[in-house]
Amino acid sequence: MSNGRDRSFLPPMDVAGRMGRLRARLAGASCDALLVTSLINVRYLTGFSGSAGMLLVTHDGGLLVSDGRYRDQARQQLSDAGVEVTIEIGRPADQLAAIDRATKGIGRLGLEADIITWTGQQRLASSLQCVSAGGSLVATRGLVEELRIVKDAGELARIELAADIADVGLAQVKERLRDDLSELQFALELDIEMRRRGADGVSFETIVAAGPNGALPHHAPSDRRIVPGELVVVDFGAEVDGYRSDMTRTLCVGGVAAPELLDVLDGVLVAQRAGVRAIRPGVSGGEVDDACRSSLQGAGYGELFVHGTGHGVGLEIHEAPAVAAGSTDILVEGAVVTVEPGAYISGVGGVRIEDTLVVTATGARALTKSTKDTIL
Amino acid sequence: MSNGRDRSFLPPMDVAGRMGRLRARLAGASCDALLVTSLINVRYLTGFSGSAGMLLVTHDGGLLVSDGRYRDQARQQLSDAGVEVTIEIGRPADQLAAIDRATKGIGRLGLEADIITWTGQQRLASSLQCVSAGGSLVATRGLVEELRIVKDAGELARIELAADIADVGLAQVKERLRDDLSELQFALELDIEMRRRGADGVSFETIVAAGPNGALPHHAPSDRRIVPGELVVVDFGAEVDGYRSDMTRTLCVGGVAAPELLDVLDGVLVAQRAGVRAIRPGVSGGEVDDACRSSLQGAGYGELFVHGTGHGVGLEIHEAPAVAAGSTDILVEGAVVTVEPGAYISGVGGVRIEDTLVVTATGARALTKSTKDTIL
Repeated sequence: MSNGRDRSFLPPMDVAGRMGRLRARLAGASCDALLVTSLINVRYLTGFSGSAGMLLVTHDGGLLVSDGRYRDQARQQLSDAGVEVTIEIGRPADQLAAIDRATKGIGRLGLEADIITWTGQQRLASSLQCVSAGGSLVATRGLVEELRIVKDAGELARIELAADIADVGLAQVKERLRDDLSELQFALELDIEMRRRGADGVSFETIVAAGPNGALPHHAPSDRRIVPGELVVVDFGAEVDGYRSDMTRTLCVGGVAAPELLDVLDGVLVAQRAGVRAIRPGVSGGEVDDACRSSLQGAGYGELFVHGTGHGVGLEIHEAPAVAAGSTDILVEGAVVTVEPGAYISGVGGVRIEDTLVVTATGARALTKSTKDTIL
Repeated sequence: MSNGRDRSFLPPMDVAGRMGRLRARLAGASCDALLVTSLINVRYLTGFSGSAGMLLVTHDGGLLVSDGRYRDQARQQLSDAGVEVTIEIGRPADQLAAIDRATKGIGRLGLEADIITWTGQQRLASSLQCVSAGGSLVATRGLVEELRIVKDAGELARIELAADIADVGLAQVKERLRDDLSELQFALELDIEMRRRGADGVSFETIVAAGPNGALPHHAPSDRRIVPGELVVVDFGAEVDGYRSDMTRTLCVGGVAAPELLDVLDGVLVAQRAGVRAIRPGVSGGEVDDACRSSLQGAGYGELFVHGTGHGVGLEIHEAPAVAAGSTDILVEGAVVTVEPGAYISGVGGVRIEDTLVVTATGARALTKSTKDTIL
């Protein structure tokens, strides 16, 4: 069972090999086993896409616990992915008991400290026999997230398909900006077009921000009509088998009415190219941010760039590596990141240009390919 | 600024009164202040709908911290809601520093233990001056979530509008089950219809599960064609200003081909009515679950009902109170809950019937009103 749609034309993902790569990292993280509570990480390691569950990864086995809603689905998805782990279906107390039995005798049980809640950690500390017998709970960070940074061929093909669907979707509906639509109506047309072209859903709530609304980087589309001469920031993506694309274009019907925005537009376009050109294996996320930021600063717009340059994209819309000021995350071949500088003038408008790119051996290749021409 | 669409025809929500009601609960939870890290709870208390931020609620004030993307949006939304709190915009380190200054001298700082991560708790424990000066971090649970159980008139109107949109949407597209669509195509038609009729989005990924797929309670819609004579479980909802509806209907084009499912259908219908009839103020969620479960057990289908009876609905699709086996959550007037028994036969099919209901002074009123007739 895939996530619904038949995607057998895409290269397969190497789900079955992932748990082994995680096991190889346990010793370095001072753990004998890891309890995976991030559902995204559970999906990555097993193919199971349910909304509840935990995965225990030990040196020689695995245990997936979930509830009755996923009795059949868990078996099907793990079998399809070729992942062999024990499955325990039951209520939360039964699931905890199964984890307890399976961790008996383990000395150092790793938890995903950036994911598990304080309550979750306290509950395990007070109920697991391995803890009362003198073992410890170890706070780990990013063990699975770091594996997820480099995409395999199947993952890359899904992000690329998501990016293609977004490109074609925008090309199809872009002309409708002339039709006196509201931000909401345009967002809806774009979302529908992507779904009709095969997206499982949207990557995140589509942002359509026209005129002064463009000054809000995360503006929710409103009833406001889109007027010729206004810049319209459109930030959106498609989802395919859980993998996401992310792209922003700044569009305008007719000439740009506010002259102060024309120079800002140029500045952001050049900064985005500077950021993309800075990408290659071995460079840090902070260096890519620097490239964008100093370009905008050189143009006199540094103060208007109020957010980070980008982020990794995959099963989550924001994931490792961080492409932001001070980020020491090192870019590696096969990582997928965004570069998305912007400039925002309160009460006037905003500009943002963003691509999703894969890091290659020598630089970066854009997966989102829509024209960056602003004027329709 | 609302969440995009002009909804001024709906009664306003009493956002400004909520922080006061939270303050009245702090002493009972052994706290002098609460750091709210659930973004849903931040939205409930302030109207701020950004994707990052924290809210500190003290006895005589409040502090919202967020990042540069939300500089203007935070001010607009708090002002629209009539909420007066200090706003600090900056990077994570600046936000933490602002929280540190504002909590200086506080003896018992409450955290939302079911929300904050273990890392988040550790970071506060090691960096806040109020802790190093001898104060403590207190694990609180459900302080805001319990306030959210009783919906005000504005909230109820939004859930009711979401339920109406879902009802009309289903009525509009239902006949298309005759058109040899796949599960995915039917789900898409339903989602589009709801968006066109004013939904901001869907409550969750729409479930369309035909024939044997109906045996998977949370089946993701697939390319599989819907065949006359098959039961089709359709579980979906609309979102309005962040508030959600939730409804399931089991439909069939023509007569039901699998005779063993006809009795199951009757059993689930009767059990759903039994659950609804059990609702009134003072009853526990466990008692409503009992009513459903014993009805299905009496019909001989107890083993096929593999999940809980229902849940609260509001800003989250699953929230308090729990309507499940053993739940001691007490239903109160103004709470909104679902009743959704189901029965699942591996490899054959499934049945689920669900309404979203508001608890009234004497019973329950259904907000979802689509016919429960199965045969089209």
